[in-house]
Amino acid sequence: MTRSPDPSITQSLCVVGIGLMGASFAMALKASGFLGRITGISRSDETMRKALERNIVDDASTDLRAVRDASVIVLCTPVRLLIEQISELGAICKAGTIITDMGSTKTEIVRAMNALPPDVRAVGSHPMCGKETSGIDVAEATLYRGMPWILTRTERTDEESFQVVKSLAEQVGAIPREISVERHDVLLAFASHLPYALSTAMVSVTDQFGQNNPEVWQVMAGGYRDTSRVAASDVTMWLDILLTNADAITGAVRDFQFTLDQLTAMLERRDEAGLKAFIAAAVSARKAHFG
Amino acid sequence: MTRSPDPSITQSLCVVGIGLMGASFAMALKASGFLGRITGISRSDETMRKALERNIVDDASTDLRAVRDASVIVLCTPVRLLIEQISELGAICKAGTIITDMGSTKTEIVRAMNALPPDVRAVGSHPMCGKETSGIDVAEATLYRGMPWILTRTERTDEESFQVVKSLAEQVGAIPREISVERHDVLLAFASHLPYALSTAMVSVTDQFGQNNPEVWQVMAGGYRDTSRVAASDVTMWLDILLTNADAITGAVRDFQFTLDQLTAMLERRDEAGLKAFIAAAVSARKAHFG
Repeated sequence: MTRSPDPSITQSLCVVGIGLMGASFAMALKASGFLGRITGISRSDETMRKALERNIVDDASTDLRAVRDASVIVLCTPVRLLIEQISELGAICKAGTIITDMGSTKTEIVRAMNALPPDVRAVGSHPMCGKETSGIDVAEATLYRGMPWILTRTERTDEESFQVVKSLAEQVGAIPREISVERHDVLLAFASHLPYALSTAMVSVTDQFGQNNPEVWQVMAGGYRDTSRVAASDVTMWLDILLTNADAITGAVRDFQFTLDQLTAMLERRDEAGLKAFIAAAVSARKAHFG
Repeated sequence: MTRSPDPSITQSLCVVGIGLMGASFAMALKASGFLGRITGISRSDETMRKALERNIVDDASTDLRAVRDASVIVLCTPVRLLIEQISELGAICKAGTIITDMGSTKTEIVRAMNALPPDVRAVGSHPMCGKETSGIDVAEATLYRGMPWILTRTERTDEESFQVVKSLAEQVGAIPREISVERHDVLLAFASHLPYALSTAMVSVTDQFGQNNPEVWQVMAGGYRDTSRVAASDVTMWLDILLTNADAITGAVRDFQFTLDQLTAMLERRDEAGLKAFIAAAVSARKAHFG
């Protein structure tokens, strides 16, 4: 059995990036009775002012060097920025500091963590939640409640740092689950990045069709609304996800295209039995996993 | 200006198919103070019993010939069944009867309506709403409220029958909008049938991937849930939609595939500027039309 980590380790926690994810995390920690001090780092003066006014953080700074004395650092910035920040932190952090992140891809992040000085500890993590809106104003303390939170070990992960990050995930109500870095990005390509790519390409093709057929936007119902929702998400966040998981995503898209071709081939030859079996299997799979 | 139709025309209304759409329509009419008598036709004894017990209809029958004396008949069955019922109704209905439907495709339905005897009237219609669950048990009086309701004229549509169907749509809270049969199926291929095809193919490919990677179902969040929702809808309803609009749907899928290929090509060559412009345009289009 694993022991709960010493609470003094989290007495000084630093959240880098005070947007939806970072601000919600700080709010959830405070709501759960977290006793440590939370410092927020943001590049925006307005965000810092709001974070302090709303008591989301105890201190705030625009300077990454303000993390110098933190015992735990949680990077909540877009993936490519946080990869840069990891290497900067190598020169800033004291020995023993635990760095974790909230990035939606892991291969490149873990590679950056593995390049940290040997006395800095790092655990990859990825809470499986979000919204199609972003920023501190839409943050909420319940964002992580009941959501999966993936943990990936790095060459800089020891048992204590792993348990610290796991405990933080539990403290905000998430359900931690360990997945290796090798598996993470392939699984997420199907579970999250493929739906995003399809949703975005669907809105794009509708936008093109709509140039000469503007009525198309007036005859939509729940099917289009739901299927297109994720396409409205934050541009920078998704650009970074696509660019740091490009190979796994193009692989998932290729598999998807074969399946879509199969569906259209049945449609072209009016293969009623084949279509019915295809549709019914999808209904069963969706219902089995989402009820 | 159009006049409101004589209310006596709708004094005897018959709803054929007492599932989600038909039962919700009858409930919405009654909730709005509709004064006519509503007869329900269903092939299921249990559905009829429920419809009568819950006061959704005033009379019920399993026999389509029970529509004989109805002044307005609303067909709420799956598309291919309702096409068969239209031609049966030609031999059953009295002169002047108004037939309408709730089918999600219109070309084949309007063709069947145009083949009715010249003294029977018919208006194509298509309320743009639904649920991923079906049947009388999930029916609700508010289903149509605020939803678009498309009307298509046929060779059997006169001004009075058009106004009668339009008034019924308004009475249940929907927003009627006329679209020609030629335009309807192409627009709907993009606005509704393409999202369904993508959602279903996505669940199908995930199901295949999940055979050897079952953890994929444990790392999903809102993006997958929303994008896959419509794939859980009624099999028969969608089989009929696909088979009666196959050409327009395969056309929309082909356009979609070009757009998806464009996205993957940019991903493969790590074209940051191109990806960013693509994503940002989709965000703008989604937000412009869904807020």
